[in-house]
Parts: sequence; C-alpha cells; structure tokens
Amino acid sequence: MELLLDFLSRFLVQFQTPALAFLVGGMLLAAFRSKLEIPDAIYQFCVFMLLMRIGLEGGLEIRDANLADMLLPAIIAVVVGIGIVLLGSMVLACLPGVKTEDGIATAGLFGAVSASTLAAAMVMLEEQDLVFEAWVPALYPFMDIPALIVAIVLANLYLARKKEGVKAKTRIWPIISSSLRGSALSALLLGLALGLLTRPEIVYEGFYDPLFRGLLSILMLTMGMEAYTRLNELRKVAHWYAVYAAVAPLLHGLIAFGLGYVAHILTGFSPGGVILLAVMAGSSSDISGPPTLRAAIPTANPSAYIGSSTSVGTPIAIAVGIPLYVALAQAVFGV
Amino acid sequence: MELLLDFLSRFLVQFQTPALAFLVGGMLLAAFRSKLEIPDAIYQFCVFMLLMRIGLEGGLEIRDANLADMLLPAIIAVVVGIGIVLLGSMVLACLPGVKTEDGIATAGLFGAVSASTLAAAMVMLEEQDLVFEAWVPALYPFMDIPALIVAIVLANLYLARKKEGVKAKTRIWPIISSSLRGSALSALLLGLALGLLTRPEIVYEGFYDPLFRGLLSILMLTMGMEAYTRLNELRKVAHWYAVYAAVAPLLHGLIAFGLGYVAHILTGFSPGGVILLAVMAGSSSDISGPPTLRAAIPTANPSAYIGSSTSVGTPIAIAVGIPLYVALAQAVFGV
Amino acid sequence: MELLLDFLSRFLVQFQTPALAFLVGGMLLAAFRSKLEIPDAIYQFCVFMLLMRIGLEGGLEIRDANLADMLLPAIIAVVVGIGIVLLGSMVLACLPGVKTEDGIATAGLFGAVSASTLAAAMVMLEEQDLVFEAWVPALYPFMDIPALIVAIVLANLYLARKKEGVKAKTRIWPIISSSLRGSALSALLLGLALGLLTRPEIVYEGFYDPLFRGLLSILMLTMGMEAYTRLNELRKVAHWYAVYAAVAPLLHGLIAFGLGYVAHILTGFSPGGVILLAVMAGSSSDISGPPTLRAAIPTANPSAYIGSSTSVGTPIAIAVGIPLYVALAQAVFGV
Repeated sequence: MELLLDFLSRFLVQFQTPALAFLVGGMLLAAFRSKLEIPDAIYQFCVFMLLMRIGLEGGLEIRDANLADMLLPAIIAVVVGIGIVLLGSMVLACLPGVKTEDGIATAGLFGAVSASTLAAAMVMLEEQDLVFEAWVPALYPFMDIPALIVAIVLANLYLARKKEGVKAKTRIWPIISSSLRGSALSALLLGLALGLLTRPEIVYEGFYDPLFRGLLSILMLTMGMEAYTRLNELRKVAHWYAVYAAVAPLLHGLIAFGLGYVAHILTGFSPGGVILLAVMAGSSSDISGPPTLRAAIPTANPSAYIGSSTSVGTPIAIAVGIPLYVALAQAVFGV
Repeated sequence: MELLLDFLSRFLVQFQTPALAFLVGGMLLAAFRSKLEIPDAIYQFCVFMLLMRIGLEGGLEIRDANLADMLLPAIIAVVVGIGIVLLGSMVLACLPGVKTEDGIATAGLFGAVSASTLAAAMVMLEEQDLVFEAWVPALYPFMDIPALIVAIVLANLYLARKKEGVKAKTRIWPIISSSLRGSALSALLLGLALGLLTRPEIVYEGFYDPLFRGLLSILMLTMGMEAYTRLNELRKVAHWYAVYAAVAPLLHGLIAFGLGYVAHILTGFSPGGVILLAVMAGSSSDISGPPTLRAAIPTANPSAYIGSSTSVGTPIAIAVGIPLYVALAQAVFGV
Repeated sequence: MELLLDFLSRFLVQFQTPALAFLVGGMLLAAFRSKLEIPDAIYQFCVFMLLMRIGLEGGLEIRDANLADMLLPAIIAVVVGIGIVLLGSMVLACLPGVKTEDGIATAGLFGAVSASTLAAAMVMLEEQDLVFEAWVPALYPFMDIPALIVAIVLANLYLARKKEGVKAKTRIWPIISSSLRGSALSALLLGLALGLLTRPEIVYEGFYDPLFRGLLSILMLTMGMEAYTRLNELRKVAHWYAVYAAVAPLLHGLIAFGLGYVAHILTGFSPGGVILLAVMAGSSSDISGPPTLRAAIPTANPSAYIGSSTSVGTPIAIAVGIPLYVALAQAVFGV
C-alpha cells in the first residue's frame, strides 16, 4: 500500500520531468492535428547525438571499469533479450487473429532496445541522484542484437518449414553483421570505441554531454507525435497486439528487475543499474529494429509490429515503466 | 531634435548588434548572389527552438505572474491586431492597382506577428538591460490570431458578396482552429503549456535559452537572404504595396506604443513591455501567416502579400522599428 | 633521429585527438558498410558554423591587428596557391594515363584550401597551447582563390588551343566572382565582415565558438566516411593520381612551412602561424572547390580530382601532415 502510494505520487511527479512532459506534449500535438513537424534531418541528428553520447560515456567508463563486474549484467542482458522473444512469440502465436510471423516480428521488436527510452531513464536517474555504473548503458547491444537475431531466425525457420516442409537453414552471421551495421548500433559502437581507445573528453564534455538533455526533449516530442499517429495503424490489426503491447513492457521490465536484483546481491550491481536493465528490457526498438525486421522478415506486417511498439509499447515503457522501476528500487533498496 | 540625434546614434549602434548585422549580412549575400544556403531543415529547427524558448519562458513566468496585470496588455494586443487589419484593408482598397482581396491579405499579414522579429527585440532589450515582464512575449497569439481571423473573414465576405450578391456566412471556428494548429503557434502554445504545467527548467536553462541568440543569428541571416530575393516578386505588383509596407510597420508600432503607454500609466506596464508590444504590432508574420492566408484566401496573389511583408515590412520592422521604439522609450520613460 | 622519434610518438598521440579519431572512425564505419548517415542538412550546417566561426574570429582579430604583419604571410599564401597549381599541372601532365585537363583540375583542388582541415589544425594547436595570430585562418582566401583561378585559366587555355589552334581569351573576373560567391567563401567572408565591422562577440562567444569542436567532430566523421567511399572512384582512373595525392599534400605543406619560416625570421610570424600556413598549403578543397571546377572545366573527370583529393589527399593532409608540421615546429622553433 505504501509502495502503491509512493508509486502513484512518483508517477505524477515524473510527468513533470522534461522527458515525459515532451512525450505527452508530442501526443497532444498529434491529437490536435498540429502542423508542427520536426524535420527528419533534425530527428536523425538527435538520435546520432544521443547514441554517440551514450557510447562515448560507456567507453570512457569501461576503460576504468572492472570487467568482471560487467560479466553477470551482460549475461542477464543476453538472457532477457532472448527470453522476451521466445516468450512473446509463443504467447502471440496462441492469440486469435495473429499471424505467426507478425507475432515473431512483434516479439523481436519488444526484445530489442530503444536508445531514446534508455536515454530518458538515464536523465531521470541523474535528476534524482540515483547513481549507476556508467557502463550499464553500454549493455544495450548485449540485449538488442540477440533479440533481433532470435526473432529473425525463428521467423525464417517458420516460413521455411511452412514452404518446404523441411527444416531449412538460416545463416546467423549475416543477421549479426546487419544488426551491427544498422545506424543506431554503429553510432553506439563507434562512440564506445572512441571512448575506449582515444581521448574524446573535450568533445564529450563540451558538446555531446551538455546537448544531451535538450536534444532528448526534441526526440521525445517527435516520438510522442509518432506514437499518436501510428495508433491508426494499430487499429488495422488484431486487438490482441494492443493488449500485448500494453502488458509486455512492464512484465519484461519486472523480470529484468528481478534478475538485476540477483546481480545486486551476488556482485553488488548498483540499484541504478538494476533500474536501467529493467528499462532496457521494457523498451522496444524504435530506430534500428523496424528497418532490420522489415528487411529480414518481408512477409510480416509492419502495421502490427511498428504499431504495437511505437504507439503503445514505447509510451508505456517510458511513462509507466520508468517511474515504476524507480519506485520499486526505492522500496527494495531503500535508496 | 535631441530625440532625433539620440535615435540616429542608437540607430547606427543597433546595426552592430548581431541580430541586425546578420539580417543585413543576409541581404548582402543575396545581393551578391552568393550560393550560400541555410538548409530548410536547419531553418525550421531554428524557428522551433525560438518559439519553444519563448513559450517555455512565458509559461514559467505566467506561473508566478499576477494574471490581472496581463489583462489590459492582452486586450490592447487583440484591439491592435484587429485594428491593423481593418485600417490596412480600407487604405489598400483605396489605392490604385490594388485588388481588394490582395489588399486584405496584405493587411492580415501585417496585423499578424513575427516570432523572429519579436525574438530579435527581446535579445536587444536584454543587451541594453531594459527589463520587461517575461509574459509579454506570450501575448503573441492575442494579436496574431484575431488579425488572421479578421483578414480571412473580410476576404471571404468580399468574395462571397462579389460572387453571389448576397451576404454569405464565413465560419470562424475553423479559422481559429487552423491558426492554432499552425506550426508556429503550436510550438509556442506547447512551450507555454509545458512551462506552465511541468518542470522544464533544466532543459530551458541548459538548452533552449543558451542556444537562443545564436540560432536567432542564423534565422536573421536566412530572413535577410529571403527579403532580398523576394524583392523581385514585389516588382511584379503595384508599387503602392511597397509604400504601404514601408510606412505601415512604423505606424502600427507607434499606435501600439501609445496604447502601451496608457497601460503603463494605468497598471504600471513596464517600458520594455511597451516596446515589445510596439514590436509585435510593427512586425508582419513570416512563418505561419503566409501558408494560412494562402489556404484561406486562394484567389489572393502571394507576390503581393509575401513580397510586401518579407522584403520590405520585416526589414523595416526590425532595422528601423526596434531602435525607434527603444529611443522613444528612453525619451518618454527616461530609462 | 630524435626528430623522427618525436614525430612518431606525436603522430600516434594525434590519433587520439577527437578530430583525427572521428576521421578514422568515419573511415572504419564506411569500411564496415555501416548504414549510419549524417543527413546532408546537418553536414551543411556544420560547414557553415565552422566557416562562420573562423571568419568571425578572424574579423575580430584583424580589427586589432597590425595590417603590416599580415602582408608577408598573405603574399606567401598567394604564391604558394599559384605555385602548387603550376607545379602540379606540369608534373601530372608528364605522368602516363593522365589527361591534361584532369591533371590541371586535380592540381587546382590541391592548391585550394580545405576549411575542415584548417579547423582541425586550429583545434589541435589550441589543445597543445601553440599560439598563432588569430588572423592567420583568414589567409584562407588568399591561397584558395588564386589556386582555383590559375587552374581554370590553364584548363581553358589548353582546351581552347586544342580546339581552335589559337590562343583564346579566358576572362578572369567571372572566375574570381564565382569563387567569392561559393558557399564556403561567402560564409567565411561574411564572418570576416561581421567580425570586423559589427559587435558579434556575444554570439561568437556564446554560440559559434563553443560549438566549434563538437561540430568539427561530426564533420570529420562525415569526411572519413566520404573518403573511404570515394576510394572506388579513384580505382577507375590512373594509379598515378593516388601517388600524386599521397605525396603532394606533404610536399606542399613543407614548402609553405619553409616560406613561413622565412616570414618568422623576417617579421616574427608565429610558429603556430607557420604550422597553419603549411596546413592550408597541404590541404585540398573539399567543399567549394569541386563544384567550382565541375562548372568551369566540364570536360575534366570528377572521379580523378575528387577521388584523389577526398579519398587520399585529405586524410593524409590531416592525419600525417598536421602532426608532421607540429613536430617540425617543435624541432625548429623549440616550442
């Protein structure tokens, strides 16, 4: 009860933070059919800046980090990424009106990670002085890539079996390679490498870091507008997608929170790190996931997986998920 | 005489401020047919940032403001916006070579407000330590929307009467709703709402406010290039447009200055506020006004109203108007 | 030997500076066929910001500078710019598989100046506390314009002689005027004029200067990607282009370094200024040079001159040239 009250009050407060406020603002703009548009070049620039900033900071921190500390959280990230896709594919396959490959693609997107959601959580933790190991955001690809691979392999296996009746081979390396080459992971990995191997402190501190919060606010605004606009696409497909998209983010986040709590007890993983792991698990990919799935599973219906993810999954992951994990952490860790 | 000398010296000094210097620089670039171009996405981004900053600051200030103080200036803004359109439509209708609907559209644009001109004035006042109530820029829509509505209603009444010989109905709500949904007002109102209802201080202070002046310099450069380029369009229409565009901004500004002075005496409206009210009245809409009028009065000739406003009205409103009102305020208020 | 060791250690250290690290990072991204793209509008914005910053600072400094001090370096800049083109045209004309007009265009591009390379050198000098007269970057057009003019005149003379057998006239003023109107020089000259004649300190210090390093890192990333991508074009033309493009930047830089050293002895030109003069001579134009040459020498093959310059010349000018001149300066001037 106390937890619930704490959560509710925290929940309302969070809507006043810039990240959430701009997300809701974007939804309202779209709902009122505003003609305001953030040019695509600006959107791409914001995404690049965010991922480069997350990568650079991760790289700078990993340099001084004890790699052994990273091991368990990284394993959890991989397990959660794969688990979400397997679980989601099975559940969605059982629901009426859901085509199997659409279900797999949707589960893949929910297993993958959203850099913007992660960035929003980082900013909120900083505002509330909740510390986390700075390499935690660099766990992103450990969850993101396995999830996309499993989804694409599952879909190809299913389609091949349906077509030929035999167990066809799906080559995994091209999927990994294509994921790594996607614009989001490229920027993140480049930032990681630059932070790890070079001395980018001067541009990190004077450019990428100070612009981080502001550019995130623009990104959240764009995502809010996009979420509302995509609702129409979701209406075209089975309603079970909306149910899955509303429940899955929080369920995934709570599972990852639980596993993160185990890592906290075993290796002293920070409370902030546990929250970020939950946020990554609860988020669904909005930048590089959709085009990757579109190219790899061309028969799946984008209205199903993008509609579920962008219009329901992401707003819930940010607006309900983040405050929920923060409140949970405060109850569990007493921070 | 002293006022004149003071004005002249101030006038020359103002041309060294970044806002005016970049405006003139842009005109020179276009005059020398430079190939330099500011990409449209960057222009739109600058406009968004400016309006969001003005909105956020307005919202943050209105929160603490005495709403009663805003009442009289807001009424003046509405009255001035409507008055400019009525006066301009009548005057232009009497001039030779001016089509009635073109005259109404031109008057509508001069009644509406330019966010960039307003921003330039705000920066100049700050540089000269002339304080103003921070909610004054939020009076923008109180002048802008009524002016556009009156112009569109007048034009439609005229066209309907010409066509059908009867007094046709023009529905006002769609015009208001379309104005509010325009990209400029959407951004301003969203900023206002976020400033009023949420806690955006951290992105306001760390992002929107520090980038304000610099982005304004880019916007002024673009406007200068645009103003020079549009001169050709003005040559295609009656020369009376150029006369109107040169005289109207200063006349409108002085009328609003006078009414603002009354508010100063009655309610203590600040000298900086009086100047900004005059700047708003003297400015003509450059972002959202033209497309709104184009959609609502399709028979009016854009060369007439955009040419007048962009190539003559705006440069005069910024380069002559702002220094004039500052000099006037110094003479009248002794600031 | 000591110089060599010093150069080698300095060379490796330089690769950790943000400018070089992002350049190499961009090449790696392209080599791994990453899908990351910096939108063109953002690239153009970065270029504009860089040139405006260089121009503004130059203008602000020339205001207080002793113009007599600038005379000798400016003459050297003109002589070096013209000399590079004459020398390059003769050398390339003697090489097998090189069309004469392609050779002239290539030499013209190597004589012209790259603003990004210059900016990278400025940032590296600042990082190492190597001072230079702030007007040195404003020597850019003194080297850039004569080089482009000589190349275009040479090419037109050659083509006219080949075609008509007589010595045809080439008008020089249109070439100068077209160079000055190009987007890069326009931005630089506008910045110079604004710095010289107005008071832009507030936007220079609050906007153009603080964003300089960060935007340069994005530009270097884009240039790295571009350099790798253009390698394919270079493969289509004679291999002698690659040899020229690898040797010429360093040779040109060393010649300019020597002449700068003379200026140091005669007029006290700063060591940092000598380095920047060498960097300008070693750089090849990447922004305004290619389109200017394309328009003026339409029969020349862009794969030859852009391939040589962008994919080999620029990376060598930045990654080998800058550390080389810094090491040389430390040996020669003992700074």
